[in-house]
Amino acid sequence: MTLILSVNTGSSSLKISLYKSAPQISLLLSSSTSSISSPKTAFSLKSSSENIDTINLTDVQQINDHTSAFTYFLDSLKHQVGIDINHISHVCHRVVHGGDFSNPVVIGDQSYHHIEELSDLAPLHNGAALSVIKAAVSALPHAKSIAFFDSAFHVNLPAHVSTYAIDQAVATKRGLRKYGFHGLSYAFVLRSVANYLNKPPSQVNIITLHLGSGASACAIRDGCSVDTSMGLTPLSGLPGATRAGDIDPSLIFHYFSDPPHTAARMSHDPNLARDVHVTEAEDVLNTKAGWKALTGTADFGDVVEQIRRGDNDKCKLAFDLFVDRILHYVGAYFLTLRGNVDALVFTGGIGERCSELREAVACAIQCLGFVEIDKEKNANIDENQVVCDIGSCVIGSGPEKRLIVCHTDEQFEMARQCVVEKIL
Amino acid sequence: MTLILSVNTGSSSLKISLYKSAPQISLLLSSSTSSISSPKTAFSLKSSSENIDTINLTDVQQINDHTSAFTYFLDSLKHQVGIDINHISHVCHRVVHGGDFSNPVVIGDQSYHHIEELSDLAPLHNGAALSVIKAAVSALPHAKSIAFFDSAFHVNLPAHVSTYAIDQAVATKRGLRKYGFHGLSYAFVLRSVANYLNKPPSQVNIITLHLGSGASACAIRDGCSVDTSMGLTPLSGLPGATRAGDIDPSLIFHYFSDPPHTAARMSHDPNLARDVHVTEAEDVLNTKAGWKALTGTADFGDVVEQIRRGDNDKCKLAFDLFVDRILHYVGAYFLTLRGNVDALVFTGGIGERCSELREAVACAIQCLGFVEIDKEKNANIDENQVVCDIGSCVIGSGPEKRLIVCHTDEQFEMARQCVVEKIL
Repeated sequence: MTLILSVNTGSSSLKISLYKSAPQISLLLSSSTSSISSPKTAFSLKSSSENIDTINLTDVQQINDHTSAFTYFLDSLKHQVGIDINHISHVCHRVVHGGDFSNPVVIGDQSYHHIEELSDLAPLHNGAALSVIKAAVSALPHAKSIAFFDSAFHVNLPAHVSTYAIDQAVATKRGLRKYGFHGLSYAFVLRSVANYLNKPPSQVNIITLHLGSGASACAIRDGCSVDTSMGLTPLSGLPGATRAGDIDPSLIFHYFSDPPHTAARMSHDPNLARDVHVTEAEDVLNTKAGWKALTGTADFGDVVEQIRRGDNDKCKLAFDLFVDRILHYVGAYFLTLRGNVDALVFTGGIGERCSELREAVACAIQCLGFVEIDKEKNANIDENQVVCDIGSCVIGSGPEKRLIVCHTDEQFEMARQCVVEKIL
Repeated sequence: MTLILSVNTGSSSLKISLYKSAPQISLLLSSSTSSISSPKTAFSLKSSSENIDTINLTDVQQINDHTSAFTYFLDSLKHQVGIDINHISHVCHRVVHGGDFSNPVVIGDQSYHHIEELSDLAPLHNGAALSVIKAAVSALPHAKSIAFFDSAFHVNLPAHVSTYAIDQAVATKRGLRKYGFHGLSYAFVLRSVANYLNKPPSQVNIITLHLGSGASACAIRDGCSVDTSMGLTPLSGLPGATRAGDIDPSLIFHYFSDPPHTAARMSHDPNLARDVHVTEAEDVLNTKAGWKALTGTADFGDVVEQIRRGDNDKCKLAFDLFVDRILHYVGAYFLTLRGNVDALVFTGGIGERCSELREAVACAIQCLGFVEIDKEKNANIDENQVVCDIGSCVIGSGPEKRLIVCHTDEQFEMARQCVVEKIL
């Protein structure tokens, strides 16, 4: 039996799925560790087999970082589920920033060469994943550890899209261009929607909104990413749970300055405006902004629930702001695709679960020729169905611009690329 | 005779128009000083009266900054044209950043109070204008000097548009929100297009592209700005001659870091990534970027001319990049206006003169229901006509979403507000 482990490392979470690869890829079990590096670390493991009990633990003392979380998972696999980890042939790791890497990178053979190449690349975004890669290489030396990059899906963005209007000598030397992220999710969505539309992926034109605590949009023409909202780093584009999204590039400097008088002063006075370091800038804009900063909660479900319960101006502002920024990209990418759009696709935690957000977006874009939303379908998404059509008519019976919810699965996408596309 | 002086101060230019206010506002003469603070300062003065010769001077030694340029203009007025400067009752000054000011501010009465309030506000953008205001107050003590703000037109942006998704306590204290600029131009365009469409301005819905060496877009609903592409400062939004436009907010930090190895490294290592000051960040992104950085020329006409003459990859990239970013805003603002758009309006130096750019944009937006461009009309804009319709049909005979070129006039707009709207 050949097993594939797919590892999705977040800043304070670790999601792992175990698949068998033959006769077809099928999920054996999935595990989730959350609130890593807080005292309240939770661990769960759920098997697809009914013979194995689901594990749900809180306050797990043995876990205090991503490395120990991975070790804890492997121990559970051995001792609780009785799986021989020597059968694991591939360990797939999602890595956010892949720089110029256009394909997955095999880490194995005791060689840390590739890890070293990755480790200086956007440390804020890749750091946790790299520690888990190291742990996997060490604990599973017989398996191939492979880094899959969220930026790889966008590697062929047109030059006029990926280029920033800055000195190109500096840009080339320092790698300053639009990379884009959420690529594993976009790849999964593309294939799933193509399948639903009964077209080859290379003929699919969609605008996909990956809306989660990190959020981005992607314009896909003929199966290729032709624009996406994140840029050099995941910071630009849409706001997220704790991320600012697009702001004036000079804002961060005035954020740290301290004007003595009127609110609107934006001084360059060296006594008021102090120098800023990249780490503190990225930290403020990635972790102390977004709807958490506007409302106090990082959970968008909470934001919507508070609006539902009555007046809450802060939550209403956060909701309206998010819808406004989403519509920016839908309108922009509609033109990028010159109106040739098969569907607008909602995915990611919020995209898949927040019916109010989908309805607000869908109502605003009817002027582009999208189908009307079916409120009944929109309110009752089947979680077991990968693609759910929430338009008011079915394929072939009306307007071609559809509204779709897709349950994305980045772990499955890695396992699939590993096996089906024989890319390694 | 009551005279009004309208002063438009650029970073290295000074444009002044002299109007008489009764029986209606009419232009008496206009003057332009360019390449201030370079040795090649040029000065021109052109009267509407045929009795007065046009003055065209180069290498003017007496001018070495904005203050001396203003003094030189007043001397020419007195000695070359024979105008009594005591008849000047109002001096209107365009000031880029008005912070929370929603109306023009009178500076007169020997009081520098208001200048002081303005002087710390976005110094990079207001600096030159403030020095000319001081010169005018001093040289014309009997006249009212009035600051008109480019941000005032956008002062009622909806909260979900003007708010950045950052800590609102910090944002409020430091005045960190979207202000928007080019407001005098947008006000002139709104009124002119309303007149052409035979509607009151309060019923006009347009997307206006002010495309010059500084470029921005504005969505106007029922005569009010509901979104615009510039933000806290003029830095964000569209790229310009030497301005980057929207970039990843962390880009500037990596611009200054110096990675030793691969191009894609974006280090946070304190040995590579150094602290950055607001002034150098704004300087690089406002004056060392844009199509100048991409092509070597800050003149967009040159960029287009080089493409016309044959293959020039850099110029083609700059042109395509500019069109792409413009289309982003047209698509976004089409949705902001929910498709209720009377016209797309091109204005500003490039918007008024570059037929190739207009054609590229117009062709891409036909999928939104805009009228087809009339290539003949587009290639032959009448410079003496304020509004030129470049659509393939005339009003009332076809699609309602029109394509318009408007010759903007910020100096006239200030004089008009001064007199007609009796705002002072």
